[in-house]
Amino acid sequence: MTENTPAAPAGTPKTAVLPPRHTTPPARFSHGVIKGGLLQVAGQVGFGPAEPGRSPSPVGPGLREQTLQTLENVRAVLEEGGSSWEDAIMIRVFLTDTEHFAEFNAIWDEYFAGLTQPPSARTTVYVGLPAGLLVEIDALAVL
Amino acid sequence: MTENTPAAPAGTPKTAVLPPRHTTPPARFSHGVIKGGLLQVAGQVGFGPAEPGRSPSPVGPGLREQTLQTLENVRAVLEEGGSSWEDAIMIRVFLTDTEHFAEFNAIWDEYFAGLTQPPSARTTVYVGLPAGLLVEIDALAVL
Amino acid sequence: MTENTPAAPAGTPKTAVLPPRHTTPPARFSHGVIKGGLLQVAGQVGFGPAEPGRSPSPVGPGLREQTLQTLENVRAVLEEGGSSWEDAIMIRVFLTDTEHFAEFNAIWDEYFAGLTQPPSARTTVYVGLPAGLLVEIDALAVL
Repeated sequence: MTENTPAAPAGTPKTAVLPPRHTTPPARFSHGVIKGGLLQVAGQVGFGPAEPGRSPSPVGPGLREQTLQTLENVRAVLEEGGSSWEDAIMIRVFLTDTEHFAEFNAIWDEYFAGLTQPPSARTTVYVGLPAGLLVEIDALAVL
Repeated sequence: MTENTPAAPAGTPKTAVLPPRHTTPPARFSHGVIKGGLLQVAGQVGFGPAEPGRSPSPVGPGLREQTLQTLENVRAVLEEGGSSWEDAIMIRVFLTDTEHFAEFNAIWDEYFAGLTQPPSARTTVYVGLPAGLLVEIDALAVL
Repeated sequence: MTENTPAAPAGTPKTAVLPPRHTTPPARFSHGVIKGGLLQVAGQVGFGPAEPGRSPSPVGPGLREQTLQTLENVRAVLEEGGSSWEDAIMIRVFLTDTEHFAEFNAIWDEYFAGLTQPPSARTTVYVGLPAGLLVEIDALAVL
């Protein structure tokens, strides 16, 4: 995008979603965006709430703590955007170790036990993540 | 999600899609979900049809058998949801070995030879998958 | 898809988007697809413009050149589809090396400095890509 790229004519309105306690994204992207009835949540990791003067860092050393914090961070974006897990149609899970699959699924099932709508679709794959991170999750919801 | 999280007020209806011969998902997610005119298919792998008392396992040892079964499993979700490949706008392909790219593309082109609508967009990346799996595929369709 | 699979009855129209200078996709998929108010851009890499008789190859040896070309290739699909970065709700970034994260973010922020709408959501993960490729990016826009 150069200086003289004309902005597209406004179609459907676009709104950024930033939960107040979330850490600032490391680049120019939004934790959540609403446009045309869709709420897209950016990849969330297990960072605890932002603290002034401290770099973001993942909670706890283990998969359980990171997973629950990551899910909580996705949930915060969904709810800040006026939505919830009930509206999610796709949740993408990025783990770092295939050995974590069974434990992750147990945490997942416990976390989502209270859903009243049909659960979201999900894809889980194993990737590299920055040091210290065991899991990253994003979600797409239809409002 | 804690017990006292209120469910979001129902917006557009949400429906789960589960082809009758599909294996049960390993956690609380749906093989497919329809909401607001979108059908999202969860990551499918090369598991054959569910058999009572047997754990899911991939068909055949090779890329070709697994790929065709995986595509068949995605198709089954699309069709159970009243859709088809013709409606897909995005297909995500997760392979495990860059050496498989050419063979995968040949299988793909053969499989999709009969499309009458413009083909879907696609992204292919190389990730880790649980032992024995060579490919995982998900899809997003607009109804 | 076998010869006798009936095509789904046409719902919302589906249009392929192919910028004139893009290289031909290596399999039967579209660089971009529009359907139901969504524009999905397929995974783009740092290939320069198509040249007759030459195989696609990435520009420059470095992350910076490849990233800018990749973003340019996504932009070309968005604009060929009558859209722009301003409409993007999700950008997926696939890098190959966690060491590239800081440099990538700096390039990203420079590139997107002129956005007038709230920036897209983004997920960044580290995967394998074919030899020579350092980055792959796809995007979903709401028209």
